[in-house]
Amino acid sequence: MDPKKLSQEQREEHEIYALGDFKLANGSILPDAKIAYKTWGTLDAKRSNAIVYPTWYSGRHWENDWLIGPDMALNPEKYFIIVPNMFGNGLSSSPSNMPAPLDGPRFPEISVLDNVTAQHCLVTEKFGITSLVAVLGWSMGAGQTFQWAVSYPEMVPKILPFCGSARTSDHNKVFLEGVKAALTADATYNGGNYSPDDKPIVGLKAFGRVYAGWGLSQPFYWHQMWRKLGFKSLDDFLVNFWEQFFVPKDPNNLLCMLSTWSRGNIGNTPGFEGSLEKALASIKAKAMVMPAKIDLYFPVADEEYEVSHMPNAQLRVIPGIWGHFAGGGAWDEDTAFIDKALQELLDA
Amino acid sequence: MDPKKLSQEQREEHEIYALGDFKLANGSILPDAKIAYKTWGTLDAKRSNAIVYPTWYSGRHWENDWLIGPDMALNPEKYFIIVPNMFGNGLSSSPSNMPAPLDGPRFPEISVLDNVTAQHCLVTEKFGITSLVAVLGWSMGAGQTFQWAVSYPEMVPKILPFCGSARTSDHNKVFLEGVKAALTADATYNGGNYSPDDKPIVGLKAFGRVYAGWGLSQPFYWHQMWRKLGFKSLDDFLVNFWEQFFVPKDPNNLLCMLSTWSRGNIGNTPGFEGSLEKALASIKAKAMVMPAKIDLYFPVADEEYEVSHMPNAQLRVIPGIWGHFAGGGAWDEDTAFIDKALQELLDA
Repeated sequence: MDPKKLSQEQREEHEIYALGDFKLANGSILPDAKIAYKTWGTLDAKRSNAIVYPTWYSGRHWENDWLIGPDMALNPEKYFIIVPNMFGNGLSSSPSNMPAPLDGPRFPEISVLDNVTAQHCLVTEKFGITSLVAVLGWSMGAGQTFQWAVSYPEMVPKILPFCGSARTSDHNKVFLEGVKAALTADATYNGGNYSPDDKPIVGLKAFGRVYAGWGLSQPFYWHQMWRKLGFKSLDDFLVNFWEQFFVPKDPNNLLCMLSTWSRGNIGNTPGFEGSLEKALASIKAKAMVMPAKIDLYFPVADEEYEVSHMPNAQLRVIPGIWGHFAGGGAWDEDTAFIDKALQELLDA
Repeated sequence: MDPKKLSQEQREEHEIYALGDFKLANGSILPDAKIAYKTWGTLDAKRSNAIVYPTWYSGRHWENDWLIGPDMALNPEKYFIIVPNMFGNGLSSSPSNMPAPLDGPRFPEISVLDNVTAQHCLVTEKFGITSLVAVLGWSMGAGQTFQWAVSYPEMVPKILPFCGSARTSDHNKVFLEGVKAALTADATYNGGNYSPDDKPIVGLKAFGRVYAGWGLSQPFYWHQMWRKLGFKSLDDFLVNFWEQFFVPKDPNNLLCMLSTWSRGNIGNTPGFEGSLEKALASIKAKAMVMPAKIDLYFPVADEEYEVSHMPNAQLRVIPGIWGHFAGGGAWDEDTAFIDKALQELLDA
């Protein structure tokens, strides 16, 4: 079970778990809710070897599997690895696949907590798992990781959130408002009521161009590291990586997940009265918190602050110049750094 | 002559110097070109007390005058301070004030070098000045400052570029591509052929929202420093500062200056074959180069690099959390820090 030996089609294969009419944290109902997921490895007889590894902003389960393999910490010969897709990513319930009347811009507002509650249903109801080995994730996956540790402290002994945060900072919200404004400046967006055959392509390209400055760091561009990704010029990278990254995606899906991201705060878990600090203090899990050195929207300082309020957490900064993308699997050195830290956490 | 004692109307008063048909570096002609400028203080009999202080991206001369005053280094009782407006800012020749056929999107491409060449005409032809005391500027004003030192090394003994660079970095270009894409995603922009009564307001607001994440730093937002500027909430700041900062401006003017910025590179001065390093090495001026500690598009590392290639330069980092806006005059501590450094340079 090595993802690197599978075809793209095999990597994309997945299961669906039907949640029924799923009650959201804000009280509204997501009817006939579905969570799409993929598992790697075999659940052992005691149901004691499961790891949850949620997806990131707009990512799909196969875009997590670069960190999975028989020669890696996330070894499917040892662990049962569950990769649940976030609501809104187009595979789990999303604006793009929800039937009327809750389709498109009418899809309900989803919180990070809703995602984790749904994943908990999958893990406990479908698989009968009562305790996990660990939860980990990149970016918004890190936010879900923190949420798991707060919502289910007895079930989550270890976490490794990388390039993410337990609360979306105001600066991060401003970044998100920027990409959102760029997308919706295209009148074809039309409040989300565009035709599937006539998406706001100009807006999606603008979304990608704005994102380009944030996803990577200043020295990434200074050293033209896009050459390492096979691009010939800066413009080639902007057009053929960044614009094309977002053009195929559904704008309502993007804005659904963007809203989830922007409102992320474990302090909003019932019982913590909005306090990030109280929620952080409640985490029982041994935590390895891994910001990237020059992540522009999840800066190291924010994670230093969060770690300072956690009883059992270690901060380990991913070095290098890939910025936020240090956690995206594009650069072998960063992948090895994360893999090593995860191995250490799993062995502890 | 204290700007703080003048009315807004008096601060906005200015002169126009007619350059005639002005030859641009790319060989094309800017017909009947005009440079708008304001002066502070009195030129002495020897014409030996002049300082040039160019404007920044979309700034007008009165938005420089926070650094001028009888109790400051830029003392108009001692110096003759010339503040020339950049081409494209709406006061000097710009898309918005140029008659057909070169109006709007047909306005020629302007370089940083063109701005400085025009300012040199003003300084030498209008005032008969053959040597300056110093040149300084913020942001794109810093770029013009570096250009003065390269173009007229015998005329510029001291420079103080703050929160800017001698060459626009690739990351900075990516930031600029982002705000440009946000503005032009509004179809009302129409390739620059909008009606003055029907500007792309949605695009201008998106431009402001994208800019918001860049102009200030992550900790600025974390600590809600917008409260110090009188705003009540993050949304209030985004709407009533950032959107309103750009909504009144002319989109073609913004994109004209953006193009000037994006192509900025003193290495393109004739004789340096595109080499930033050779051009930096040619600077004779004593230089105080002042990046701001957490400037997101003019990072300290870039200025460390530039200073390392300059024969007579000192790097002095502006501390604090205002990011790029450390050089914008909004925060007294940063203003005092810059003023003190300038005093030291002028006294040296």
